[in-house]
Amino acid sequence: MSTRELHLGVNVLSDGMHPAAWQYPESDPNWFSDPAFWIQVARTAERGTLDALFLADSPSLFQPPGEPLVAPPLALDPIVLLSTLASATTHLGLIGTVSTSFEEPYNIARRFASLDHLSRGRAAWNVVTSSDPYAWGNFGHGDEVAEQPTRAQRYRRAAEFIDVVRALWDSWDDDAVLGDKIRGAFSRVGSINTIDHRGEFFNVTGPLTLPRSPQGHPVLFQAGGSPGGLDLAGRYADGVFAAQASLADALRNADELRSRTVAYGRPRDAIRIMPGLSFVLGSTEEEAWRRNTELNELAGERRLAFLAAQLSVDPAELDWDSPLPKWLLDGAETIGGSQGARDIVVNLARREQLTVRQLLDRVITWHRLVIGSPEQIADAIEEWFRAGAVDGFNLMPDVFPSGLELFVDHVIPILRARGLFRHEYRHSTLRGHLDLERVPDRRSRVTAQAG
Amino acid sequence: MSTRELHLGVNVLSDGMHPAAWQYPESDPNWFSDPAFWIQVARTAERGTLDALFLADSPSLFQPPGEPLVAPPLALDPIVLLSTLASATTHLGLIGTVSTSFEEPYNIARRFASLDHLSRGRAAWNVVTSSDPYAWGNFGHGDEVAEQPTRAQRYRRAAEFIDVVRALWDSWDDDAVLGDKIRGAFSRVGSINTIDHRGEFFNVTGPLTLPRSPQGHPVLFQAGGSPGGLDLAGRYADGVFAAQASLADALRNADELRSRTVAYGRPRDAIRIMPGLSFVLGSTEEEAWRRNTELNELAGERRLAFLAAQLSVDPAELDWDSPLPKWLLDGAETIGGSQGARDIVVNLARREQLTVRQLLDRVITWHRLVIGSPEQIADAIEEWFRAGAVDGFNLMPDVFPSGLELFVDHVIPILRARGLFRHEYRHSTLRGHLDLERVPDRRSRVTAQAG
Repeated sequence: MSTRELHLGVNVLSDGMHPAAWQYPESDPNWFSDPAFWIQVARTAERGTLDALFLADSPSLFQPPGEPLVAPPLALDPIVLLSTLASATTHLGLIGTVSTSFEEPYNIARRFASLDHLSRGRAAWNVVTSSDPYAWGNFGHGDEVAEQPTRAQRYRRAAEFIDVVRALWDSWDDDAVLGDKIRGAFSRVGSINTIDHRGEFFNVTGPLTLPRSPQGHPVLFQAGGSPGGLDLAGRYADGVFAAQASLADALRNADELRSRTVAYGRPRDAIRIMPGLSFVLGSTEEEAWRRNTELNELAGERRLAFLAAQLSVDPAELDWDSPLPKWLLDGAETIGGSQGARDIVVNLARREQLTVRQLLDRVITWHRLVIGSPEQIADAIEEWFRAGAVDGFNLMPDVFPSGLELFVDHVIPILRARGLFRHEYRHSTLRGHLDLERVPDRRSRVTAQAG
Repeated sequence: MSTRELHLGVNVLSDGMHPAAWQYPESDPNWFSDPAFWIQVARTAERGTLDALFLADSPSLFQPPGEPLVAPPLALDPIVLLSTLASATTHLGLIGTVSTSFEEPYNIARRFASLDHLSRGRAAWNVVTSSDPYAWGNFGHGDEVAEQPTRAQRYRRAAEFIDVVRALWDSWDDDAVLGDKIRGAFSRVGSINTIDHRGEFFNVTGPLTLPRSPQGHPVLFQAGGSPGGLDLAGRYADGVFAAQASLADALRNADELRSRTVAYGRPRDAIRIMPGLSFVLGSTEEEAWRRNTELNELAGERRLAFLAAQLSVDPAELDWDSPLPKWLLDGAETIGGSQGARDIVVNLARREQLTVRQLLDRVITWHRLVIGSPEQIADAIEEWFRAGAVDGFNLMPDVFPSGLELFVDHVIPILRARGLFRHEYRHSTLRGHLDLERVPDRRSRVTAQAG
């Protein structure tokens, strides 16, 4: 085992990353809301000793109202789903996306702390600010239609939201539950405190309703690649799941992220960098490409529509055998959508002069795509890991559950044989898997600083 | 089996209804946040073929900040906890309390629909408007400290909140998932629709992110006994969990509730009335009273403080061997707290001229209390059920898990032998247990009205 540890999560985006995943012969179109499907996927991930299962989210159908759906949506509430998986698994980390734009910090602090208790230390919150324009229409009040604020406003709110959540997680000392049955004293005097937060967005008294959870603080992930996202990650995140389409981009991103981390007074290696890795896997390279062709034929023109939606361009502007539109390659200011991810896809297409068809064999919904044999997938992982560009990946198989099963049965053994990945879980918490310390309570941190 | 069915839920209020539950020799003060404890209790309830497990809630510690806790709080987020229990049980209904005052309807609609999918049709939402004054301090925005609105405002918001949630639950038709893998058509054209709600409090476009759930609509419970609560229940509720301290009160309440139900155009028996039933159970009456005395001695003066807090009076105004204070008995207007429940406790004390000590052997935190042998508890249940005052009870054992285990092992067999209660589950959904129909989709309801 090398001294640096490889970390692997799995991003379960309904039936798979490929637009035609639900059409694959083995797939059932109703799996996306079926508990048996989700439990099977989680247990497969645990069989592969993966660090965590990751759920993306947005509170809308992410498309104009009235249009029929071309694929299963991100349907289930992530926290409800992760809580269901908590009692069906024993070691797997459980990472859920929740936007800071449509919730109250008290509720989110309480919900992730509850999940951390009930999973015995496996909860993580992936903080997003919501670039989905349709979500805002579901959260208006009275006469006022909620409108998407500027990116800067969203990130200011996110930072304050996280401050409140962390203060609430610290509102009980570690030893607050005295439990003196004889004297009838349940909690220790002075050990449960208000937070009295007064800020630009929130006004929260506290304390939280429950004791500090097994991890001290549930793990914080951050997924955005824009300057605002990078800054938020450098300040708060334990892990980052941002798209990286090429090794050069990933290296530059890692360097910038680690610099920001240091600028916020944190250790340079405080953050686990785990971008998405999408893959189509076969027992041989030829078999992988056959599987890829089969899926692409099922998806047909929808692949192009998916790319257009990600780049916020009109599908009519894209042609299979031409480069991206010139105005896009020339780098007009990006104004909507996931800024960082979009830039990275456009950069890749520009630098390597790819046609749309070639680009679609290199990235899938913003993320690096690898098509090949188990050895080739393992090589792709090892290359970026050894280069120091990443600490691991968030796996995004083409189709669930078979894509993940193939990975666990054929790629994980190679990574283990190369001394890159754990043979069994050595910890019971997600912080343990990620080689991160439990967060000590407020009083202990003050003592440590004074000592 | 009689034609009317008895319905039994269990209200798991942290370690038990008795203020000294956590001090009982068998109890562990840390159970309230321990998944193993909750899973054990849920499986015991399922062994007893109970209809459901019920979780009360408030997003605060429900006491002035800074004071140490005298008992375990309602710590865990109810939805997170119920979702964890969903995959650890197979038949038990899962009822969670969520206030309409601190959440967005889109999130709540989505969360309960998700739980209904993941539990395969066992989810229920207990709607409250929050009388807890401390909760408001956790949900202020910017400079503005959130203040508790009037009861009327709270109930107007609750009604509109429920309207939005139900419209979102109806935003997909039952057959919306077409799943045509050959043509690549995932959803049926025109089967997923916006709700375009514009009201006093909310402005929500929709549709929801997920298909209609197994029950059509998750079950709606309502817990308040004030006029506003009764009205909300008559209009929307499938089940009611409001405190009733005497048979006379329960009969009057049932009559009023059924009249309101009819006034809203619903069938007279549309609602399952299931007030709380607290009990201290022994193999003989003497043993039950010994257990009661033992618990009371552990609690000491805290029993009196608990009663004072429920009645919103200064503990110094209460004396063990005197009646309640005259001003309270004379029925000054109630202004805070849970109005209906408080009135019912004061009425009982007035009508039967009880001292504080006698009152505390008849009610516990607002609910009917019975102390006795298995036969006596069964008699107490049968009496109110046969009188038509209730459809069943929400059980509130003195101490968990032993109080529930005693009930399941010794009272349930008596109720079964008397033909009052099911011998095994005959349905897989909570609506099935409660003898309520699945709610058909919007289109089917329109067709039924036209036909």
